[in-house]
Amino acid sequence: MMRLSPPGYSKFSQATSFDIVYGGGSANVSISCSYLGMKAAHVTRFPDNALGKAATQFLRQHWLSTKHVLYGGKMLGKYFLEKGAVHRPSEVIYEREGSAFSLIEPSMIDWEYVLKDADWFHWTGITPAVSEGTAMCCLEAIKTANRMGVMVSGDINSRKNMWNYGKTMQEVMPELVQKCDIVISSRRGIREMFGLGDLECNFRDSAEALMKTFPRIRKVVGKTRKSLSASHQQIQGKMWNGEEYIKTEMLNITHVIDRVGTGDAFAAGLIYGLMHYEEDIQALSFASAACALKHTVPGDVNMVSLENVISLMEGDTSGKIKR
Amino acid sequence: MMRLSPPGYSKFSQATSFDIVYGGGSANVSISCSYLGMKAAHVTRFPDNALGKAATQFLRQHWLSTKHVLYGGKMLGKYFLEKGAVHRPSEVIYEREGSAFSLIEPSMIDWEYVLKDADWFHWTGITPAVSEGTAMCCLEAIKTANRMGVMVSGDINSRKNMWNYGKTMQEVMPELVQKCDIVISSRRGIREMFGLGDLECNFRDSAEALMKTFPRIRKVVGKTRKSLSASHQQIQGKMWNGEEYIKTEMLNITHVIDRVGTGDAFAAGLIYGLMHYEEDIQALSFASAACALKHTVPGDVNMVSLENVISLMEGDTSGKIKR
Amino acid sequence: MMRLSPPGYSKFSQATSFDIVYGGGSANVSISCSYLGMKAAHVTRFPDNALGKAATQFLRQHWLSTKHVLYGGKMLGKYFLEKGAVHRPSEVIYEREGSAFSLIEPSMIDWEYVLKDADWFHWTGITPAVSEGTAMCCLEAIKTANRMGVMVSGDINSRKNMWNYGKTMQEVMPELVQKCDIVISSRRGIREMFGLGDLECNFRDSAEALMKTFPRIRKVVGKTRKSLSASHQQIQGKMWNGEEYIKTEMLNITHVIDRVGTGDAFAAGLIYGLMHYEEDIQALSFASAACALKHTVPGDVNMVSLENVISLMEGDTSGKIKR
Amino acid sequence: MMRLSPPGYSKFSQATSFDIVYGGGSANVSISCSYLGMKAAHVTRFPDNALGKAATQFLRQHWLSTKHVLYGGKMLGKYFLEKGAVHRPSEVIYEREGSAFSLIEPSMIDWEYVLKDADWFHWTGITPAVSEGTAMCCLEAIKTANRMGVMVSGDINSRKNMWNYGKTMQEVMPELVQKCDIVISSRRGIREMFGLGDLECNFRDSAEALMKTFPRIRKVVGKTRKSLSASHQQIQGKMWNGEEYIKTEMLNITHVIDRVGTGDAFAAGLIYGLMHYEEDIQALSFASAACALKHTVPGDVNMVSLENVISLMEGDTSGKIKR
Amino acid sequence: MMRLSPPGYSKFSQATSFDIVYGGGSANVSISCSYLGMKAAHVTRFPDNALGKAATQFLRQHWLSTKHVLYGGKMLGKYFLEKGAVHRPSEVIYEREGSAFSLIEPSMIDWEYVLKDADWFHWTGITPAVSEGTAMCCLEAIKTANRMGVMVSGDINSRKNMWNYGKTMQEVMPELVQKCDIVISSRRGIREMFGLGDLECNFRDSAEALMKTFPRIRKVVGKTRKSLSASHQQIQGKMWNGEEYIKTEMLNITHVIDRVGTGDAFAAGLIYGLMHYEEDIQALSFASAACALKHTVPGDVNMVSLENVISLMEGDTSGKIKR
Amino acid sequence: MMRLSPPGYSKFSQATSFDIVYGGGSANVSISCSYLGMKAAHVTRFPDNALGKAATQFLRQHWLSTKHVLYGGKMLGKYFLEKGAVHRPSEVIYEREGSAFSLIEPSMIDWEYVLKDADWFHWTGITPAVSEGTAMCCLEAIKTANRMGVMVSGDINSRKNMWNYGKTMQEVMPELVQKCDIVISSRRGIREMFGLGDLECNFRDSAEALMKTFPRIRKVVGKTRKSLSASHQQIQGKMWNGEEYIKTEMLNITHVIDRVGTGDAFAAGLIYGLMHYEEDIQALSFASAACALKHTVPGDVNMVSLENVISLMEGDTSGKIKR
Repeated sequence: MMRLSPPGYSKFSQATSFDIVYGGGSANVSISCSYLGMKAAHVTRFPDNALGKAATQFLRQHWLSTKHVLYGGKMLGKYFLEKGAVHRPSEVIYEREGSAFSLIEPSMIDWEYVLKDADWFHWTGITPAVSEGTAMCCLEAIKTANRMGVMVSGDINSRKNMWNYGKTMQEVMPELVQKCDIVISSRRGIREMFGLGDLECNFRDSAEALMKTFPRIRKVVGKTRKSLSASHQQIQGKMWNGEEYIKTEMLNITHVIDRVGTGDAFAAGLIYGLMHYEEDIQALSFASAACALKHTVPGDVNMVSLENVISLMEGDTSGKIKR
Repeated sequence: MMRLSPPGYSKFSQATSFDIVYGGGSANVSISCSYLGMKAAHVTRFPDNALGKAATQFLRQHWLSTKHVLYGGKMLGKYFLEKGAVHRPSEVIYEREGSAFSLIEPSMIDWEYVLKDADWFHWTGITPAVSEGTAMCCLEAIKTANRMGVMVSGDINSRKNMWNYGKTMQEVMPELVQKCDIVISSRRGIREMFGLGDLECNFRDSAEALMKTFPRIRKVVGKTRKSLSASHQQIQGKMWNGEEYIKTEMLNITHVIDRVGTGDAFAAGLIYGLMHYEEDIQALSFASAACALKHTVPGDVNMVSLENVISLMEGDTSGKIKR
Repeated sequence: MMRLSPPGYSKFSQATSFDIVYGGGSANVSISCSYLGMKAAHVTRFPDNALGKAATQFLRQHWLSTKHVLYGGKMLGKYFLEKGAVHRPSEVIYEREGSAFSLIEPSMIDWEYVLKDADWFHWTGITPAVSEGTAMCCLEAIKTANRMGVMVSGDINSRKNMWNYGKTMQEVMPELVQKCDIVISSRRGIREMFGLGDLECNFRDSAEALMKTFPRIRKVVGKTRKSLSASHQQIQGKMWNGEEYIKTEMLNITHVIDRVGTGDAFAAGLIYGLMHYEEDIQALSFASAACALKHTVPGDVNMVSLENVISLMEGDTSGKIKR
Repeated sequence: MMRLSPPGYSKFSQATSFDIVYGGGSANVSISCSYLGMKAAHVTRFPDNALGKAATQFLRQHWLSTKHVLYGGKMLGKYFLEKGAVHRPSEVIYEREGSAFSLIEPSMIDWEYVLKDADWFHWTGITPAVSEGTAMCCLEAIKTANRMGVMVSGDINSRKNMWNYGKTMQEVMPELVQKCDIVISSRRGIREMFGLGDLECNFRDSAEALMKTFPRIRKVVGKTRKSLSASHQQIQGKMWNGEEYIKTEMLNITHVIDRVGTGDAFAAGLIYGLMHYEEDIQALSFASAACALKHTVPGDVNMVSLENVISLMEGDTSGKIKR
Repeated sequence: MMRLSPPGYSKFSQATSFDIVYGGGSANVSISCSYLGMKAAHVTRFPDNALGKAATQFLRQHWLSTKHVLYGGKMLGKYFLEKGAVHRPSEVIYEREGSAFSLIEPSMIDWEYVLKDADWFHWTGITPAVSEGTAMCCLEAIKTANRMGVMVSGDINSRKNMWNYGKTMQEVMPELVQKCDIVISSRRGIREMFGLGDLECNFRDSAEALMKTFPRIRKVVGKTRKSLSASHQQIQGKMWNGEEYIKTEMLNITHVIDRVGTGDAFAAGLIYGLMHYEEDIQALSFASAACALKHTVPGDVNMVSLENVISLMEGDTSGKIKR
Repeated sequence: MMRLSPPGYSKFSQATSFDIVYGGGSANVSISCSYLGMKAAHVTRFPDNALGKAATQFLRQHWLSTKHVLYGGKMLGKYFLEKGAVHRPSEVIYEREGSAFSLIEPSMIDWEYVLKDADWFHWTGITPAVSEGTAMCCLEAIKTANRMGVMVSGDINSRKNMWNYGKTMQEVMPELVQKCDIVISSRRGIREMFGLGDLECNFRDSAEALMKTFPRIRKVVGKTRKSLSASHQQIQGKMWNGEEYIKTEMLNITHVIDRVGTGDAFAAGLIYGLMHYEEDIQALSFASAACALKHTVPGDVNMVSLENVISLMEGDTSGKIKR
């Protein structure tokens, strides 16, 4: 998607230009992975025009392989972001309807080819919400990954008001989630999508219920976000891995630069962490640190280096100049 | 429509921001009229969100009455403009499909209320091309104007590839055009829409044929544009008023700043001219001067003053500093 | 007034461009009211040149009626703002002398016409400080409003060093204030202008004294501002309505974006609140929330939505993204 | 003066920021001289605030000595420039009234101290037009220069509508001009100020008449400007030195970047030329080349190098890249 | 190399920011090839820091393969560009000394691996001028290409003042050039490097002499550039292919946007042309059109599309908007 | 040095432009002194090209005398700064090698001439680290200052990894430091350079040891910086003057705008303080306040006014608007 935002803290009513970046859930995750040093590709569909090319070029610039990008359709999905501060919330206007991506059809992607030599496949809950086609593509991908022995993680959070094509998330998500190895979700997500747990139920119990329902899942991961204000957030990772309930230290982001994409940074950090650390607590700490750092990077995408994440994960919150 | 363009002469592939203005055929005409000192309103439909409001605010800023703007639908029509130079053409990508305007329906507008106290109604050939709804609205408006004795002018030029909703321009345009008092069109437009004239036929003969076919039309107006390059254009107005064939001096725009909206500036100039001058040649000269000056104003809209237009119309091409 | 400020936190000595907005006490109040959904007009005088027009266009863009703007004189009032941070104060340089507004004369405005159909007239203490003419205009307006039964509110704070035309605020203000229904003032203002209360006197007692002196006044409203630094402010509304002394919760603006115009946002919020809520505490809470939110909006003017204010007024300080 | 201009070719009605430079006739001349390698100082008066300091810093940045700048008064003189193109004229709005400079008084400047070690004193016709005080200062300076044997040049062009303080240019200018060694003027200037020559009279004859009237004058210098459009200008220098009438080749500036300050660049070039070349034709060619090059430099001031001017003066119009 | 240039037409002395692009002779050629639809890689060496990565990312963004980029050394080569206009020349300041690229050593690149599956190898005369190491690398590459049957083209123009490492171009170039299939050079280049032809000798004769001396060369290609001014250039391609002397129409670039990299665009166009057209005149026309179009694209690199080039090559100089 | 930084909080990988300022340790100190009202000059060496001139112009703009700037060499020293936030550190890339300054040689500067009429000479620990030449120049300067009775202060902090020219700081620094009157250093600096004190040793004892070793030193000054994050710093000044150990209040910079150059602002504040206050505690408080304020000014240089510093030094941390 193309993200268009008024410069600085200007409101839409003041803007005479929009800053442009390209992003969107899964693109953000894969670019984050690239900046951490992993090889990653993004599978999507862009219109076959100069804007679709510019979006592709953005992905390439940020280290992704774009050989699996499809072209067709007429419109690039968009969202407009007005950045808030303190008590003033950021506002987002989506324009996804009719986008090239929303018109994707299952047969369009050769997932065996895409996943050849891949270690990991990640999807987000936005994809199946966009259209029947994207949901089916996502399912195909997950099935192929399962068949080929590729790890599958899903960041399944989804907003009810996104589902406008005739199916509900309750109908679509279970089939996708049951084939996942790792699931990122909030307590609320588990409750709303699968009817597991009630309002009092804590994360651990929700996660446990989810893993019982879908036994393939090996870890359920979440994060606690305290929104003290639009400018001050706190982040803590949590995980149920079937054996223990793990929580990281609360990280305190006192001066938010850009809050968008922080969940994707968390997912990317988790993938990196699970692939590179032996202990779940390390993976989770890595993910939380990556998430916290994204709050300081303008745009959708976490461009911090591996060194930055490790340093914060190891407790250095000083932000001292590196010369 | 929202117009998004990379700054300066940057290409889409280089842009990290887009300059934003709002415009589109008939909006451009009415704003131009306002800058010339006439009271004008624009009738359209915007989404009921912050972007729709920002578009409205743009119209207000540029002196329009927006009391007839409707709100509804989800998307604001857009176009992306990459500005060319010399031999490199400007490129335009439209995103009109599904826009709030395209989903307008005839009953939505109370044209009697809109046209109360109006002297003039102007429409462009883009409107009926967008959707069945916009075409029907346009027809309603014209009929009401006829009934109320309001002058009607139409800038009927239209590109075939715009008509995607199932009707052709040959089917739709005649009913609209026959109710017009003033028609702006090219020779090619007259030939393609109404089958009048052939490739050899000159403007005068085409115009004459059109006026015979649709006897309400009192003047057919056009312009000759010589595109020496994207940076150098020449403009000449021409008119058949049923009695004489009138042509203005060729105006030489040697350093184009923004070529978009120049046709709309011509239309606005023509409306002003016909309302304020006795002689057709004066009206046409005024229109041509307005058109030429628009080439020097960034954005879609002609913001030059009445004094600027009169000065050029009277032959002062020197561009000398006014202190 | 035109406000010119170096971009970001640059100092005057670094600036190669100035960001331009238009504002000034009462313009800010009326625009704020417009964004909250009320119909508002601004009465002022601008030079009859392109800058005066641009100022008018700014007011129109931000929803105001400008039909009562007068044109004449040569100069647009200006102020230059260098934005501070933390311990570094913002610096303001005024250039009001000789402005079109300062040269206004009483007979120029037909207040009966202006106030026809109006529910409320608001003035600020800056207006009578500018010149004898503006003071007389202000008095005329207030008298007319009284006569026509239009509510009058005055934000009477005024800095002694602004009064340079030969009269002191002690001479001018009493006649204006005694005709007000609602007065916004600080304790210091009441003491300095009317000699009511001493240094130890609290807000409630000052307000009570003021209302005894000028019995038309129904409410005296103020706010406590704690300036922890240029980047961190706290705001609390307070009101004496003749019966109770009301105070709102202290709002904590931890990351100030633009501190200018926050008093005007408070006034606009108060007007909205008094017109739409039954309880004074609600009106005051609304005003305080509006004031707090203005600190996060660049420019002089509070462009937040009614929803934003209500949400904060109801206690949601989280600033969570609205999608 | 502070110059404020909308970026690029934007109109005042579109501008959300102004580019800032500092300039004004005689400042431009002295900075130009500095870039050509001469030591120069500028004598003026700025307000004693951050804007006055910023103006001083601008002069220092561009190599001037500012030790003779006075501080006092409240306002910095300003002008607003909207840059035109092709047939659209640039528009300038002056705000000089009440400026620190306009309030200068003769006794404020110790001209003996200023002119110690100076070889040349230059003044422009704007200075005596601003106020009685500036006119008297100018006269004092010229008298002192005469007494100290410092060369005096005056660029005496002046617009009638600038003279608003009660005296006409016909009353003031003769006393100033008669003490000059070098005069830059147009034919029209000579006719209007001194009643010399009529409409048919050519430059040479006007100049001759002027030199007869004021025998101290040794050279009268002018330039022919052909304004083909705001974007295309032609420049030719001309001089009557009492013996011959000299004209340079016409220089063709096909793509104007910034037309303001070109007359000042001419004056600076003339001063440099007369001090460094033996032949008048060389000095005049140098001045014309400097003038032509200024049209390509954004801002008021000619920042081209000595090498640039010499190269164009010697006929290299190719603009080839220097690596 | 990193290119740093003041925005617009600002001079170095005015700049408070620099626009950044990455480029340099051979990078420009390969990116141009990519935009024309060919697969291309760039071989170079960047410092192993964030700037080296940013340079790599720029290449990726513009479609290049960067798998052959080496990392090491400390400094990224740079050049500063001040853009001229009309008679004012652009000025370039190089900072190549000590760059990561200049410290490259022959053994660092495995040319067999690089050239596997390649059809074409292109080098420019700048490379052997930078250092002994780059010259040796270049020679290695050419030898390997010869051995592997890969076509070799060299744009051998070189400025004498670039050769500072102890060898002259007369010593180094012959060995490189004799192994080329296609040579791009000026008459002057042939004369200075190889002592072939004299000042009167025309291009055709120089080219013929060169091909006699180095029989492997199959075509010698050049262009005539007329620099009417920095803002107006004319371009004509010319070629001696051993049998005929071919010249294209002169293309007239009346409004130059960015003149840098136009030679590289020519080279890229030539490579494309020779690979895709049967007739040399077609290839040369394609190259000339590509070169002309580059003058309208900001930055070092020709980002125009294949369609743009073909359209101009086929004679459409109108620059008409593409909708 | 030229400082190049991506706008706002952008990362190098996102930047399409760099903001440019000029600075570097001792330049920052002298400019700071100028803004506090002292006359200051900076002695350095710039390349004799447009960039060297632009650097000079920057110094002049910020009030320095540049008459002792030398020209020669080819490259201007540079550093690239990516500004961090919260947990994300700022990153600095230096490019000093081969700079004009690094190639300075002792005989190049006539220190007697430079120091004539000077009251104070200040140097920083970076200078002797750059090259043998800069170290020798520095020594010469200090010796001359000693001989001429000019006070000498040195901010001797230095990073080990800066010393690349063959000498260690342990070899070079003692000779320089022993001739200083005032030394600014951290505890670590004293330990590493002179082997005085161990890890447990506190500032006071280290300072005492240093003064025993080098009896000329009269005061050793340092500051405690607490880096709560890149966006939140705390600063406290400390001094051992041979008699008492003095510490200031901790200043709390809650919203850092630009952390670079804050040490230099401290040094400048110290120089001002020692020259204008009788009590060391006042001088130290002044230095700390200056240092704290620099954190709020973009760029390398402290541009706050004397009034700002005094106000904070006297305890006003409110940052209230100055009108």
